[in-house]
Order: sequence, then C-alpha cells, then structure tokens
Amino acid sequence: MSDLPKFVKVHEEGPREGFQIEPGPIASARKVEFIEALAETGLKQIDCVSFVNAQKVPGMADAEEVIRAVRRKPGVRYTGLFLNTRGLLRALETPADIVGAIRVTASETFCIKNTGMNHEQTLAEQRRYLEIYREHKVPVEWGYVMTAFGCNYEGFISTDRVCLMVQQLLETAAEAEVSLQGIYLCDTVGWGTPLAMERAIGAVRERWPDLPLALHLHDTRGTGLANAYAALRLGIAQFDATCAGLGGCPFAGHKGAAGNICTEDLVFMCHEMGIETGIDLEKLIACAHLAEEIVGHPLPGKVQRAGSLAHFREKLGASA
Amino acid sequence: MSDLPKFVKVHEEGPREGFQIEPGPIASARKVEFIEALAETGLKQIDCVSFVNAQKVPGMADAEEVIRAVRRKPGVRYTGLFLNTRGLLRALETPADIVGAIRVTASETFCIKNTGMNHEQTLAEQRRYLEIYREHKVPVEWGYVMTAFGCNYEGFISTDRVCLMVQQLLETAAEAEVSLQGIYLCDTVGWGTPLAMERAIGAVRERWPDLPLALHLHDTRGTGLANAYAALRLGIAQFDATCAGLGGCPFAGHKGAAGNICTEDLVFMCHEMGIETGIDLEKLIACAHLAEEIVGHPLPGKVQRAGSLAHFREKLGASA
Repeated sequence: MSDLPKFVKVHEEGPREGFQIEPGPIASARKVEFIEALAETGLKQIDCVSFVNAQKVPGMADAEEVIRAVRRKPGVRYTGLFLNTRGLLRALETPADIVGAIRVTASETFCIKNTGMNHEQTLAEQRRYLEIYREHKVPVEWGYVMTAFGCNYEGFISTDRVCLMVQQLLETAAEAEVSLQGIYLCDTVGWGTPLAMERAIGAVRERWPDLPLALHLHDTRGTGLANAYAALRLGIAQFDATCAGLGGCPFAGHKGAAGNICTEDLVFMCHEMGIETGIDLEKLIACAHLAEEIVGHPLPGKVQRAGSLAHFREKLGASA
Repeated sequence: MSDLPKFVKVHEEGPREGFQIEPGPIASARKVEFIEALAETGLKQIDCVSFVNAQKVPGMADAEEVIRAVRRKPGVRYTGLFLNTRGLLRALETPADIVGAIRVTASETFCIKNTGMNHEQTLAEQRRYLEIYREHKVPVEWGYVMTAFGCNYEGFISTDRVCLMVQQLLETAAEAEVSLQGIYLCDTVGWGTPLAMERAIGAVRERWPDLPLALHLHDTRGTGLANAYAALRLGIAQFDATCAGLGGCPFAGHKGAAGNICTEDLVFMCHEMGIETGIDLEKLIACAHLAEEIVGHPLPGKVQRAGSLAHFREKLGASA
C-alpha cells in the first residue's frame, strides 16, 4: 500500500530560519535558551545561526556569540549556515558543527537573480567549495537541488532538469572524491504539490534507485504536510522543518508568511502513523510555545495550539 | 499510480462555521456580502447559517434575516444547518435550500456527551427525521458518520465500527425507502491522519465498492490537506471546506483554532495537480481577504496570503 519509513530524521532549522527573519531584536540569551530546549527534545541536528553579513541580516549579528554560548548536549549537532567562503571561515572559528554541502539551483533564472552567478559559474563555485572543505577537513554530506519543484521566474521545473541537477551534483562530488550521503530536493519558493513530489522523487529514483533523498519544504500555500506525506509514502525519511513553523507568520502581508513546514506538526503526523522520530513531541510543543513567547507573536504551527493526543490517550489507557 | 479524480466538488461552509464562532457581532449585511461573493466564485453549495438557539449561538440570531437577504444566483444552493425539528421547521419558513441528512456518531461516548442520546436513540431520531423530511418534501442526500477517525473520549475508531455506522445509515435510509447519495466520513475533532483516511476509506470501499464517499475534515493538527490528499489519491471527489479556514483562528488559546480545511488551499492543491473544481481561485482568494476584513483578525488560510501561482504563469506565458 505504501513504503512509509519506520524512522524519520528531522533537522530543526527554526533558530536560524526564525530569528533571521524577525524584525525586532531578540536577546542572544533567549536564542540560546531556545536552542538548548530544542536539544532536549531528541532532535539530533539544530541549525542555529547564519554566518552572513550582519549589515544585511541584523538578526544574525550575534551568530558567534550565540553558538559559543550554547551548552552542548552530546549527540546533538549544532550547525550554522554559510553562503560564501568568508562565512565558512567565520564558522570554522566557532564551536559550530560545520557540515559541508554543495548546492545547485534548478532554475537558472532564480540562480542568477539570487546569487549573481549562472549555472556554470555555480558549478565551478561548488568545486571550489569542495577544495575548501578538504583543506579545512569539513565533512561533506548532502547535495542540494534548490527550486526543484518550480520557481516564480521559470514556473514548473521538469523532472529531466531535476535529474540533470542530481547528476551534476554527484559528478562534481565524485571528481573531488567525495561521496555524498544523498540529495536534498528543495521546494525553495513553495511551488510543490504532492503530485510534483511523486513525479520528481520517482524520476530520480528511476535513475538512482539507491540514492537517499531528503526534502526541504516550505508551507507557502498550505500543502507542506501533504507534500511531506506524499514523500513519506515513497519512503523519504529525512526532512528539514522549523519548530512552530518559525520563519512564517500568520499576519497578512508579512514577508515571512512562507515559512518552512512545522517540526511538531510533521512529528505529530509521523508518530500518529506509526513512524518513529526519536523526538519527544510534548517537549517539542513546549519549545514551540517558547518560540512564540520569544518572537512575541503567533506562529503558524497547529499542534502547539491544539495539543497532541497524548493526554487523551493517557485517560483512555491501553484502549486507545 | 493513483486514482486522483478529474473533478472535485467543494461545499463551502465558511459563513456558517465562521460566523457562529466569532466572538464579536458581525453585521448581517456583511454576512450577506460574503455569501454573495462566494456565490460568484463557482462554488455550487454554500452553507450560510445555522437555525439554532440564538441564546446559545448569538452569532446566528440573524439566520432568517441573512438567508432572506441574499440575492440568489441560479445554480447555487444556499443551505442552512439545523440540529433538531424546531430548527428544521424554522429553516423551512425561509428561502434556504433545505437538504435532509441523517447522522450517526461512531463514538457513542461523544454522541452521549454531545447530544444526550445514546446510539440506539440516535438511530431512532434519524428515523423520525426521515419521516419529517418525507412529510415536508425535503430531499435526503447524504448520511454522515461523525468522529469517524477518532475522538477525545474513545480514541481511535476502528474501521469495523465505521463500517457498522455506514451499514446502519444505509439500512435506516432503505427502511424509509430513501436512497442516499453517499456517506460523509467526518473528522469531527481532528484525530485524522492520512493513513487513517486510507484505512477507513479502504474498509468502507471493500464492503461497498460503488458507494460514493465524501470527507468533512478539520485542520486541527496541521494534517488537513495531507488527509485530503490521501483521500484524493483514493478517488474521493467531494469535500467540505471553509474559505480562509473560517472557524479557525491563528491566535493561541482561541477555541476556534480547530477550523475546517481551507477552501482556497484545497482548491489550489487540486488545480495544481490537474484536478478541476469549477471554482475561480482568484475570486476565492478575494473572498478570503473579505472574510479576514469582516472578522477583523487573521485567518489560517495560506494561499490567501501567499497568492496563487497564476500571475507568475501569466508572465511566463505558455512555458510554465
């Protein structure tokens, strides 16, 4: 009937996605408090900060301070994002768990508008990255296909194009004698539908049946968890998500409306379908409440408002 | 790969679900304005009001006034909810399109707490309803199984129990020489998951392969559209929904958080997967904005904030 995985890995991106988009200043101590609370839920990877230009992203000016202040729980990785060599070198000076990645964008128009580089230049940049990773002994894990399901400039992305991106990522890694753990397909700007997930995953699977795939989804138009479910049915077992849907905002006109899928909603759906995540949903819901308190406005997550089904089950005992 | 339907019918429940839950008084004229705007979108059935006790539901005290004031568009049904004979008789005095239904609740505990009647009494009540419908020449269309996927008192509902409910609805109708159009499975209190949809729909299908099924879903814990997608894959082609997610509210602690699935998000997902609905999504998004303006606070729908993909496609021309 389906290939639902037995265990799903969830990478938490809330601190980075959320705090970089919030307009008001948030005390570094509160960011640290949130990251430490997330680490107690069973999440094994938390993206904490961005090592980006503080002029452009004021919310990340305290990246070093935050990542240095976090009390580290063994077995948890505290990662940081970097978008250029300068950022990587900054990150390497901190206790952040630096994970190397290579990235291409399926929509070349989006790539040019977003980074100023065309596709060929982007590939060359990834080769340079792989050299820097080797030089600094940074482990390289996943390749990323951005805008894998569509973009506002080029519309839908064909599965042929997605497969070409996957091929080039694998080849680029192989040239550098790096073996990628797998490929992330990213719905960068919210064009994905469940059917689009099935088509893209199906096309990549047909060519690389054993290549692990993971998804980075945004809930821009409400289909986020439906997209995740379509992928779960095909055995996809790794997702990025943000606690409380951080990065999004329920207020009309707010730029952050297009947040990531919500971690606790995804975890709830998985658990209720018998899929383990290693995450304590109640603790995660408490983190979502903390996130709302810290940002000072409602966040889009649903389970944090409705609550899980655990307390009903407790009352019911074994009968539920 | 799947049995996605070619066309999906959506019944709009926003005016009734939304306006009965809002704390502040809403002018009758604004309710009428909203209903008339919805009728211009291509929606063919709009649940407008509840004929319930005005003391208990002050937001519906103007039910008669609203339903009488609506300028009716040919081909659109303007329905009203009634929960007892008194309400039905009130409804029959108005221009509302009165549609008969019979309802049972899979969770007997929920039924007793909610209606004061046990299951046998509920079945007897449905027989009385069928007599009243006949007497007043009210067409009977669908049978409803409430709490079909779980409830806070009894936990998960077994598919055997769901099938028993369906059987009793069909038998009760048949005794009254009424042929039901089909059965609505209702996730009344938000226990549904995509897998639960597949199991319940599968079990009912196995016994009644040709019986049309429809879904009434709430997005209590974020899985609403994922549940709808699981059902679409099995060919389910009729859903209730509320414009902008009316009935829900993004504010923490608001009782209305557990709103229905959002009409324009559902329509967006259908259209993007090649499923027709006969609904103009842009007009529907305008209705969602109107709904937010009328209730005076943000509503949970996502597409109304992010916008559809139509204007991107227009720029792209035929290439998208």
